[in-house]
Amino acid sequence: MEHSFLDDYSEGAHPQILAALAGTNLVQQTAYGDDAYSQEARKLLRQHMGTVNPDVWFVASGTLANILLISSALRSHEAVIAPASGHIVVRETGAIEATGHKIITVPPVEGKLTPNAIIKALETNAHFPHMAKPRLVYISNATEVGTLYTKAELKAISTLCRERGLLLLLDGARLGAALSADKNDLTLKDIAELTDMFWIGGTKVGALLGEAIIISNPELREDFAFHVKQRGALLAKGRILGLQFRELFREGLYFDLARHANAMAARLSDGLSKAGNKFVAETETNQLFPILPNELIAQLKERFDFYVWEPYDANSSITRLVTSWATSAEQVDAFIAEVNKST
Amino acid sequence: MEHSFLDDYSEGAHPQILAALAGTNLVQQTAYGDDAYSQEARKLLRQHMGTVNPDVWFVASGTLANILLISSALRSHEAVIAPASGHIVVRETGAIEATGHKIITVPPVEGKLTPNAIIKALETNAHFPHMAKPRLVYISNATEVGTLYTKAELKAISTLCRERGLLLLLDGARLGAALSADKNDLTLKDIAELTDMFWIGGTKVGALLGEAIIISNPELREDFAFHVKQRGALLAKGRILGLQFRELFREGLYFDLARHANAMAARLSDGLSKAGNKFVAETETNQLFPILPNELIAQLKERFDFYVWEPYDANSSITRLVTSWATSAEQVDAFIAEVNKST
Amino acid sequence: MEHSFLDDYSEGAHPQILAALAGTNLVQQTAYGDDAYSQEARKLLRQHMGTVNPDVWFVASGTLANILLISSALRSHEAVIAPASGHIVVRETGAIEATGHKIITVPPVEGKLTPNAIIKALETNAHFPHMAKPRLVYISNATEVGTLYTKAELKAISTLCRERGLLLLLDGARLGAALSADKNDLTLKDIAELTDMFWIGGTKVGALLGEAIIISNPELREDFAFHVKQRGALLAKGRILGLQFRELFREGLYFDLARHANAMAARLSDGLSKAGNKFVAETETNQLFPILPNELIAQLKERFDFYVWEPYDANSSITRLVTSWATSAEQVDAFIAEVNKST
Amino acid sequence: MEHSFLDDYSEGAHPQILAALAGTNLVQQTAYGDDAYSQEARKLLRQHMGTVNPDVWFVASGTLANILLISSALRSHEAVIAPASGHIVVRETGAIEATGHKIITVPPVEGKLTPNAIIKALETNAHFPHMAKPRLVYISNATEVGTLYTKAELKAISTLCRERGLLLLLDGARLGAALSADKNDLTLKDIAELTDMFWIGGTKVGALLGEAIIISNPELREDFAFHVKQRGALLAKGRILGLQFRELFREGLYFDLARHANAMAARLSDGLSKAGNKFVAETETNQLFPILPNELIAQLKERFDFYVWEPYDANSSITRLVTSWATSAEQVDAFIAEVNKST
Repeated sequence: MEHSFLDDYSEGAHPQILAALAGTNLVQQTAYGDDAYSQEARKLLRQHMGTVNPDVWFVASGTLANILLISSALRSHEAVIAPASGHIVVRETGAIEATGHKIITVPPVEGKLTPNAIIKALETNAHFPHMAKPRLVYISNATEVGTLYTKAELKAISTLCRERGLLLLLDGARLGAALSADKNDLTLKDIAELTDMFWIGGTKVGALLGEAIIISNPELREDFAFHVKQRGALLAKGRILGLQFRELFREGLYFDLARHANAMAARLSDGLSKAGNKFVAETETNQLFPILPNELIAQLKERFDFYVWEPYDANSSITRLVTSWATSAEQVDAFIAEVNKST
Repeated sequence: MEHSFLDDYSEGAHPQILAALAGTNLVQQTAYGDDAYSQEARKLLRQHMGTVNPDVWFVASGTLANILLISSALRSHEAVIAPASGHIVVRETGAIEATGHKIITVPPVEGKLTPNAIIKALETNAHFPHMAKPRLVYISNATEVGTLYTKAELKAISTLCRERGLLLLLDGARLGAALSADKNDLTLKDIAELTDMFWIGGTKVGALLGEAIIISNPELREDFAFHVKQRGALLAKGRILGLQFRELFREGLYFDLARHANAMAARLSDGLSKAGNKFVAETETNQLFPILPNELIAQLKERFDFYVWEPYDANSSITRLVTSWATSAEQVDAFIAEVNKST
Repeated sequence: MEHSFLDDYSEGAHPQILAALAGTNLVQQTAYGDDAYSQEARKLLRQHMGTVNPDVWFVASGTLANILLISSALRSHEAVIAPASGHIVVRETGAIEATGHKIITVPPVEGKLTPNAIIKALETNAHFPHMAKPRLVYISNATEVGTLYTKAELKAISTLCRERGLLLLLDGARLGAALSADKNDLTLKDIAELTDMFWIGGTKVGALLGEAIIISNPELREDFAFHVKQRGALLAKGRILGLQFRELFREGLYFDLARHANAMAARLSDGLSKAGNKFVAETETNQLFPILPNELIAQLKERFDFYVWEPYDANSSITRLVTSWATSAEQVDAFIAEVNKST
Repeated sequence: MEHSFLDDYSEGAHPQILAALAGTNLVQQTAYGDDAYSQEARKLLRQHMGTVNPDVWFVASGTLANILLISSALRSHEAVIAPASGHIVVRETGAIEATGHKIITVPPVEGKLTPNAIIKALETNAHFPHMAKPRLVYISNATEVGTLYTKAELKAISTLCRERGLLLLLDGARLGAALSADKNDLTLKDIAELTDMFWIGGTKVGALLGEAIIISNPELREDFAFHVKQRGALLAKGRILGLQFRELFREGLYFDLARHANAMAARLSDGLSKAGNKFVAETETNQLFPILPNELIAQLKERFDFYVWEPYDANSSITRLVTSWATSAEQVDAFIAEVNKST
C-alpha cells in the first residue's frame, strides 16, 4: 500500500518528540509524573489558560481520560448526557457504564450537542428518584465527524450547564485539529473557562501516546491522583508523557502539526471537489467524508487505504479519509492524481 | 379521595396471604430461603413448567430481580438490548449500568421489542472490540404500556436470540395480567422454554412483596446464590416470600387475582368507551390509557386519583388508570357514573 | 426438633405486627415509602433522636442497608476500615467490594473496633495515592460476637473519626439487643449524635423484615433516594416496612422484644453456668458462646438445634446459642433440664 | 544528587529501544496492536513458551495488567487470594476492589504465598453463599520484597490451584530480575505451563513503558480484547509497546538488562556486607534491604537517594536500595566508597 488515509495514528511521533526522549533518556527523574518534564509541561499548558490555573494530568489514552474524568466526578446515581455519536457512546466498549454510570443519548446535529437537546434530555429524565440524575454533559471538539464548535455554541452549552447544575466535559482527542481550523474562534483559555474539565489529545496530533487532562473546576481536583492510580493510568515513567507535551507546547509544535494535518485535508478536499465529488459534510478539520463512485473506490484501493463508511446510493459510497501531521503534500497529490485518472 | 387508580400496589396483600402468614407465624423455619414454604412454592412453580425444571428464587423487588439476573449472567464487556420504554431503561435509576453494563436501546413497537429491532441493534453494535458486545435481550410481559406478547412473537424473538447467541430475559412484573388477558396464548411453560430466565411479579398481583425468579438455562444457575446474597437480596426470613408464592400458586390465586384486575380494567374501559372516550392503545391488561377532556379530568380528580400522562390536544389529555386485585366493581362503576355525569 | 437456638430469625413476626398489617391492609396508600405509616414511623424514630432530626429510610435487609450507606457516602477511591470480624467482612459475600470499595480490616478486641486499631490502619494506609484513602469506619453494635460498645468507647471512636475526617457507620442488626442489655449506657440519641449514619435492625428483633436507616450527617442525605432505588431497595409497598417500625416504636415494643430475648439468654446462660459450663465470652446480649462437652452436645442435639462453632479441646467445643423475642422460658428451661440430665 | 537508588524506573529506556522507535517511526502501521512489530513480539514471546502457545497482549502499566486479568477472569461474586504484601493489596489504590472483587489476604512468608496459606484461606472462606467465593490466586515473582519462587514452590501452588479449581495469576513486574537471579530455576515456559495467566514487566527492566500479558488458559482468552478496550488499555499506537517487546526479546536484551541490574545489586550487597552491614533479607534480585546506621544514612543521603524503610533499632534503620539496567558499576562503587569512609 502506497499510503493509508485510514486514521491519524498510523505513524509514530514527530521527530522532535523522539529527539527529546533520546536527549533526556539517562537523566534520572522522580517517578509517577513528578518529574521535571511533566512540571514544565504543566506550566506551559497553564500559560495558555490564564487565571483558570487548572490542574494538569497526563495519561496514556483517551478512553482512560474519559473514564477518569467521569468516574471521579460523579456519584453512582448520576448520569451523563452525550450525543448518540459520542466516542464514549459508540467507541469505548461501554467503558463509562463499566464504571457504573448511565449515558443518556440525544440525537446530534452535525455531530454536535445542542442546548435544546440537553433541555429535552433533562425533561425526559426527571422522574426522580426512579431515573438516574443527569449531572454531566459530554461533548467532543472536533466531533467524531470532524465538525467543530464555535465559541457561541460552546458558550450556550456552558451557560445552560451552569444554570442547571451540570458539569461540562470536553473530549479533545482531536482538539488540535479543531483549534487550528479556519472556522475556529475558540482558544484553550476559552475552553478552560467554559468547561469544568477537558483533555487535549496528544496521540492523534503527533505524540507517541499521551493525552493532557485539564481540570478547571476546583471541586473536581480533589483526590484526582487516587483515581489516576486506581484506574491503572499512573505511569512509573510518567516523564515520557510529560516530556512529549513539553515538546508539543514549548514552541507551538502542537498547533503546527494540527494545522498541517488540516491543510493536507483541505488540499485533499479541494482536489476531490475539483474532480466533481461531493461530501456528506463540509471539511472543517482533518477528516473528510467524500462520496465516491464505487468504481473509483476500487481503483484507489489498489494504492491507498481508507474507510468505506456506508453505501450512499447504488453506485457510490460515503468514504472517510483522514490526514495527519505525517501526511505529505506528495501523498495527497498522488491520491488526487489517481482520482483524476478515472475521469 | 374515594379511590385511587394510580397503580396496582396501593393496597396490602390479598387476605389469604395474610392469613397464611398468621397461620405459620410461630413455626420455626430454616433461614435464608431454605424453609419448607419456599420449598413448597418452588415445587408448585416447577409443576407449571414441565421438563424445564428451573431453579426458583424469591426476592423482594423487581429491580433486584433485574439486577441479579443481568449482573450474574454477563461478563463486564457484555451489553443488554432493550426497548427504549423498558423498565430497566426508564424506571430503575440506572441500576443495570450501576452493575457495569451498557444498555443498547431500540425503539419499541407498542411497547414491544421486535426481531428486526434486535437485528438492527446487532448490526450497529458490531465494531468489536470498540463496542460492548450485545449478549442479553430484555423484554417485559405485560409491557410497560400494558400490551402483551403473543406466543408467535415471543417464539420469533427466542429463535433469533438462540441463533445469535443472545440470552433472553423476560421481566414479569405484570406477568399475571399478561397470562390472564383475553388475547394471551402463552403459558408459564412456554415462557420457561422460550426464555433463559424470567421473573413472576408477586407485588403487583396481590402479595405484600416478592417476585419469583425462574432460571431455565442451566448455565445461568451456577453460583446464583452468591449473587442473591451479594446484592442484599437474601432475606433472613425468606419464608415470608416463599409462603406468599405458595399461596399464590397453591390453587390458582395468582391467576384469579390477575383475571380480576383485568376484568375490572375491561369494565372501566367499556364504560369509558360507551361514554364516547377514545384510548391511545387498546386495553389488553390492567392498564388503561384513555384520552379524557381536561374538564372531565378536573371533575374526576375530586373523587379519584390517577395519572395525567401528557397533553393530547388543547382540550384533552392522555391519562393512565390502573386496576388491581383489590379494585371492586363498585369503585369502577362509581368512576363511570362520575364520567357519565359530565355528558 | 423441639426448639432451635440457631438464630433469632427462625420465626415470623411478633403478633402485634401481623395484626397491624391485617388492620391496615385495604387502606390505599401512596407507594414507595411515602405512605402514612412510614411517615408515622419516621416521626416516632425522630422523637428518640432529639435535635439530630435525621433522615429515616426503611429497607428489606441489613446487607442492603450497608450497601446503600457505604456506596452512597464514598467516592470510588475511598476505603472502609472495619474489624476483621465485621459482618460486611465475613458474611456479605463481598457486597461492599462489589460496589467498588476496599475494606481495610483490623483485628477486633472482643468483636469491637478500638481507636488504636483505627490509628494503626490510617498509618499503614497512608502511602497516597498508591493506597485507597480510608474514609469510613464500620462498627456493629451489638457486635457479631454479642458484645456491646459503652458510651465511652463509642465516643472515643466518634471523636477520633471527626478529628481524622472519617465517617462513622454503625450496623445495628442487633441494636435492640445492645440497647436493652444490662451493661448498656447508650441511647438512640447518643448513637445519632456520635455516628454519621446507622441502622436499626427490625428483622432480628421481631419484624417480618425491615431495617431502619438513620442518616444524621446532613451531607450524606442528599440524593439518598436515588441510591435506594438504584440498588433495588425501594419497595412499591413500602408501607409494610414503615408499618412494622411504627408498631415497634409506637409504645416501646422494640425494646420490650429485645429485652425479652436478652432475658432468655441470661436465663439460659445462668442455667448453663450453674451446671458448671464455661463461656468463651460473657453473655451480654442474646448470643451465648458456651463451651460444652461433646457428649452433651450430641445429647442436646437430639432435641435442640444450635451451632457448634469450633473445637475447644479434645473433649469439648465452643457452641453458639441464640435467643429471640419468640423464645419462651419453657423452652429455655427444657434445654437446661436436658443439660442437667447429663450431670 | 549524584545517583538515585530509589527505584528501577528513574531513567528512560535502553538506547536500543529508542533506536528501534526512531528507526520505524515513519512506517505506517495498523492501529490498536495489530501492527507488524506487535506481531513479531508475540511470535518471539511464544517461542519461549513451547506448546502453550498463549495469547499475548501489551499494555501500558502493571496496574492495568492486573485489572484486566482479574476483572476479565472473574464473575462478580468471586474473590482473589493474595499475600498481604501483594502489589494489588498495598500499592494499587484498591484497583481490584474497584472492579468489584474482594481480595482475601493471607500472611506472606518472605513475601511469598504458600500452599498452606491458600488452604487456610479456603477453609476460612467457605461459609457459602455468605462469603465471596475464592477463585483466583495472585502472586508476584520477584516478590515485592525482592525474593523469588523456586520451581518446586510454584509447582506446589499450581498443583493446589488446579486441584481446588483456582486460577493462578503471576504478576511479573520484576519477572526479569527473578528469572535472571542466581537462585532461579524457572523458565518462561515453566511459568506459562504452571499459571493460567501472567505478565512480563517491561517498564522496570528497561522499556519506556509496557507490560506483556500472557494468557495460557484458553478459557480466559475469549473476548479479552473487549476488556482491554473497555479499561482504556488499547493504545491507538499499540506499535510502540509491541516494538519495545520485540527489541527486548529479539536477542535476549530482556535477560541481559535484568542480569545487569541483579549484578549491580550483588556488587552493592557485597560491598555493604564487607563493610559490616547486615540485611533484613538475602539479596536475591535487584532490591536490597540493608540495615544501616542512622549516621551513615545521613552521610550517604548527601550524595545518594534511597528509601529509609523503617527504624530497625535506636541507632539504625532498614533501607531499600534498587538497582536497574542503567546502574553503572562506578555508581555502585562510589556508594560503597562513601560507606567505607564512615568506618
